[in-house]
Amino acid sequence: MSEFHTIGLLGPTENTSTVLSLRRLMAFLENKGFTVILEQNTAANVANHKAQICAKDKLGELCDLVIVVGGDGSLLTAARALAKFSVPLLGINRGRLGFLTDITPDAIETKVSEVLAGKYIAESRFLLDMSTTRDGKLIGQGCALNDVVIHPGEFIRMIEFALFIDGQFVTTQRADGLIISTPTGSTAYALSGGGPIMHPKLDAIVVVPLNPHTLSSRPIVVEGSSEFKVTIGQHNIAKPHVTCDGHDQLLTQPGDVIRIHKKPQRMTLIHPIDHNFYETCRSKLGWSG
Amino acid sequence: MSEFHTIGLLGPTENTSTVLSLRRLMAFLENKGFTVILEQNTAANVANHKAQICAKDKLGELCDLVIVVGGDGSLLTAARALAKFSVPLLGINRGRLGFLTDITPDAIETKVSEVLAGKYIAESRFLLDMSTTRDGKLIGQGCALNDVVIHPGEFIRMIEFALFIDGQFVTTQRADGLIISTPTGSTAYALSGGGPIMHPKLDAIVVVPLNPHTLSSRPIVVEGSSEFKVTIGQHNIAKPHVTCDGHDQLLTQPGDVIRIHKKPQRMTLIHPIDHNFYETCRSKLGWSG
Amino acid sequence: MSEFHTIGLLGPTENTSTVLSLRRLMAFLENKGFTVILEQNTAANVANHKAQICAKDKLGELCDLVIVVGGDGSLLTAARALAKFSVPLLGINRGRLGFLTDITPDAIETKVSEVLAGKYIAESRFLLDMSTTRDGKLIGQGCALNDVVIHPGEFIRMIEFALFIDGQFVTTQRADGLIISTPTGSTAYALSGGGPIMHPKLDAIVVVPLNPHTLSSRPIVVEGSSEFKVTIGQHNIAKPHVTCDGHDQLLTQPGDVIRIHKKPQRMTLIHPIDHNFYETCRSKLGWSG
Amino acid sequence: MSEFHTIGLLGPTENTSTVLSLRRLMAFLENKGFTVILEQNTAANVANHKAQICAKDKLGELCDLVIVVGGDGSLLTAARALAKFSVPLLGINRGRLGFLTDITPDAIETKVSEVLAGKYIAESRFLLDMSTTRDGKLIGQGCALNDVVIHPGEFIRMIEFALFIDGQFVTTQRADGLIISTPTGSTAYALSGGGPIMHPKLDAIVVVPLNPHTLSSRPIVVEGSSEFKVTIGQHNIAKPHVTCDGHDQLLTQPGDVIRIHKKPQRMTLIHPIDHNFYETCRSKLGWSG
Repeated sequence: MSEFHTIGLLGPTENTSTVLSLRRLMAFLENKGFTVILEQNTAANVANHKAQICAKDKLGELCDLVIVVGGDGSLLTAARALAKFSVPLLGINRGRLGFLTDITPDAIETKVSEVLAGKYIAESRFLLDMSTTRDGKLIGQGCALNDVVIHPGEFIRMIEFALFIDGQFVTTQRADGLIISTPTGSTAYALSGGGPIMHPKLDAIVVVPLNPHTLSSRPIVVEGSSEFKVTIGQHNIAKPHVTCDGHDQLLTQPGDVIRIHKKPQRMTLIHPIDHNFYETCRSKLGWSG
Repeated sequence: MSEFHTIGLLGPTENTSTVLSLRRLMAFLENKGFTVILEQNTAANVANHKAQICAKDKLGELCDLVIVVGGDGSLLTAARALAKFSVPLLGINRGRLGFLTDITPDAIETKVSEVLAGKYIAESRFLLDMSTTRDGKLIGQGCALNDVVIHPGEFIRMIEFALFIDGQFVTTQRADGLIISTPTGSTAYALSGGGPIMHPKLDAIVVVPLNPHTLSSRPIVVEGSSEFKVTIGQHNIAKPHVTCDGHDQLLTQPGDVIRIHKKPQRMTLIHPIDHNFYETCRSKLGWSG
Repeated sequence: MSEFHTIGLLGPTENTSTVLSLRRLMAFLENKGFTVILEQNTAANVANHKAQICAKDKLGELCDLVIVVGGDGSLLTAARALAKFSVPLLGINRGRLGFLTDITPDAIETKVSEVLAGKYIAESRFLLDMSTTRDGKLIGQGCALNDVVIHPGEFIRMIEFALFIDGQFVTTQRADGLIISTPTGSTAYALSGGGPIMHPKLDAIVVVPLNPHTLSSRPIVVEGSSEFKVTIGQHNIAKPHVTCDGHDQLLTQPGDVIRIHKKPQRMTLIHPIDHNFYETCRSKLGWSG
Repeated sequence: MSEFHTIGLLGPTENTSTVLSLRRLMAFLENKGFTVILEQNTAANVANHKAQICAKDKLGELCDLVIVVGGDGSLLTAARALAKFSVPLLGINRGRLGFLTDITPDAIETKVSEVLAGKYIAESRFLLDMSTTRDGKLIGQGCALNDVVIHPGEFIRMIEFALFIDGQFVTTQRADGLIISTPTGSTAYALSGGGPIMHPKLDAIVVVPLNPHTLSSRPIVVEGSSEFKVTIGQHNIAKPHVTCDGHDQLLTQPGDVIRIHKKPQRMTLIHPIDHNFYETCRSKLGWSG
């Protein structure tokens, strides 16, 4: 008997290959006697089925496990939506890299079977909460599994900002922006920006300046419990934006204050039992080949 | 007797400090008996003067020397406009860094005197010509003293493109973009992107990938005579843009072809006699402090 | 009344300026009524004094506080020697950078007074234990506050080795070597090697490959509790060495196994009350200037 | 009829696979009617042959083409020895990477045939001359196709030196050392040190600081005609060494002066007709994969 009974399915894109994998997965799960619930947008893409349907939020309440079919972006979106519930997520890769979604579509039956039989690795990952205030009033908030990025919106316009960590002034910079990334995000945009790889279990946050016009910059890694404050400089021609996992563009004004800290609720990411972070770095990033 | 007789002045911003320096410079030059011509926008900012006025283009025809009062951006703009003429440029720094405009405002009389008396270093710098075609038809062109940058327009949207140099396929990348920079530009945005410093006299062009999502990227330096071709990939969600020295945003479509090569005409940058590139790197970039 | 009564002094170099600071410090402490104990080599350098003398080891047993006069290297040596005791260390800077020794010689009286009066920041820092075995037998061991470095001994000879973390294979590399660094060491040799800056409070260890002959390498940050194993490759022409904080060169042979993990005992570093890590990065490393 | 008549063979290692390739190559060339001359150490490794034998130096005088069987190191050694002659070099790869030796052992007949039939790319590459003086007297010299490296001899000992280019002071550094590299060397040790890739045709030299203990360092690319002078600092505990292509360790003393400039004679490297530098970067360095 599996510890998982009700299984939610999320496959947000209309992509033919995603739908194929969803159908294959549904057939497999229903055949094994599991209760399957489809997220409503996912259900719209999968025609002719008899599965229960519910809103994305409801999925977190009703299911013991949510399987995401898609790319890392789909899993990030699911994680942000479901972080407040304790439901673990498992990913079937239908995207490019599949750093978070590690089951390949042709291994659905074998690998999902193993997971359902209790042969898996559960990894607890933390998210970041971001809130932005103007004159003391909240003007926007979001959460991120990968990173919060402050950037000029459009390119070729450096922005100015000041960074404080735990109340201490850290730096004022002219740069394309700033990436504040979890270990999960350290293999995403923070890697593009030159940041270090961080092991997913590490309780740390990395600050990666984005194309700073200085020679003397370096990524800085701080405790996961750190409180970040970024204040938008007065002399910005560009209008700095804030994004969480590349979504929810929030437009700021000079004087706005962006606060970022670890989200109280964590998410649980399920990996097949043979998962190995270093192997993933080697095979998917060509690390140290 | 100076080799320079007719001196053009360019001070494009309405900035009070720029106007102050322009007036001081005009007074000094007229007192010394030089003919001064003001570019027309510059003239609009300087009230109450008797100097001749002309359009920016005309400045290149009429003058033996053009003095730019402003930041590096002002000098870049002047260089692009006047590259087709052989008139040398000299810069008075009223901007931030002053990598190209090396006379400080308080040294106008002494340093400009020295230059007019023939005590100067003349540096020949090359520019890049960019032209973009769609289905074989020209849709945009520009020139750059610093760099041509291909980027996604808005942030957090990687673009895909292929790069060819001298007809040879170089790379296909997913990145925020690509910087193709002259030695002059190597201390500007290319430096922010992690490129090497290049001596201004070097006949070379550097290609700096902008935040590539790969570990195995590295800037590549090629001959100044190289012909670059960038083709915009078919699968871009973002709309890649092309900018020259951060100006003239040109919007591309999948299949567009961007060609970049050295401009036939070069510009001459005048430095005070004690100018030293390495010293500038140390004092203005804090290089190797 | 101070919580510190018996104060040990360590000033390992014969350097005139170090001796001057030691004398000034002794005079100040004795005048204030503290019991001063000089480490025996230190005592040899300071002529004409009546203070008690003891071996370095004994210092840890007898004192409530040990003040190190010298550079960061002196403090590292003291930390390795005294880590098994719980005595806190305070540093007077007589070296170059003074990242660990933050009191300047001219501020001895004011700053040491403050510390003795209880106005200080106590920072707990961890060390690394290194042990190397050949055919299962221990051939060398050491401890490090900054870093354990595996390198070819002589230059221009790359070495081959395999790295395992927590029993998982991480990478095989051809490189000049490998730096395994604590947060304390992240501003020392690991920084030279391109590693990130890590906040001293972070419970993490960074692995920085030293000049790897590959494009696809990147520093990796893992939990402080990680167990590292490095095995020396069979095809090394060079003889790989292991050093702890740059000391105790241990020569290895193919097949030797180097194990590194956090030392059970931590050391306490005392800072003046106005100490700020980010400020130190800015002022001493020119960080993000 | 081939433009090449007398072909020298160099295969410096006793390695079985190298000797096999040499024999195969000799058989092929003699069968085709070419005159084959074996370098004397090479001849010692190849038993039972009737070919002419001569010293390495003589090879340059007697041959129209020299084929090197071995790794990049063997080709570097051949290039240094034969640079004073105008004989072109072709490489059969029996080493690891084969950046310079691009014919694979199993393609000897087809690829060498093509070259002998005139289907090849000839690339002119420059070398560096290094000479070191003490109190004005020459104490050592050498030449390098890849790089001249100044380093501390043993590891974990930074050195201090001053760098001048074309008579201008560039920088004083505390670092593990300095790499001065040709474009040929830019994919060798300079790449390990973080330098840019340079196209082999580029007339430029890159200076790559080796693990400098500063945040504000960056490789710098200068004209191929530049004159470098490095003076060894007075306060070095370590004894700085100079190596050319990793060979000929020259030990320096404080005050010694190392001068480096382009060698007047260039070497000609022969590539198969389908050679493509960028393809080599992609396939052998995993560039931008």
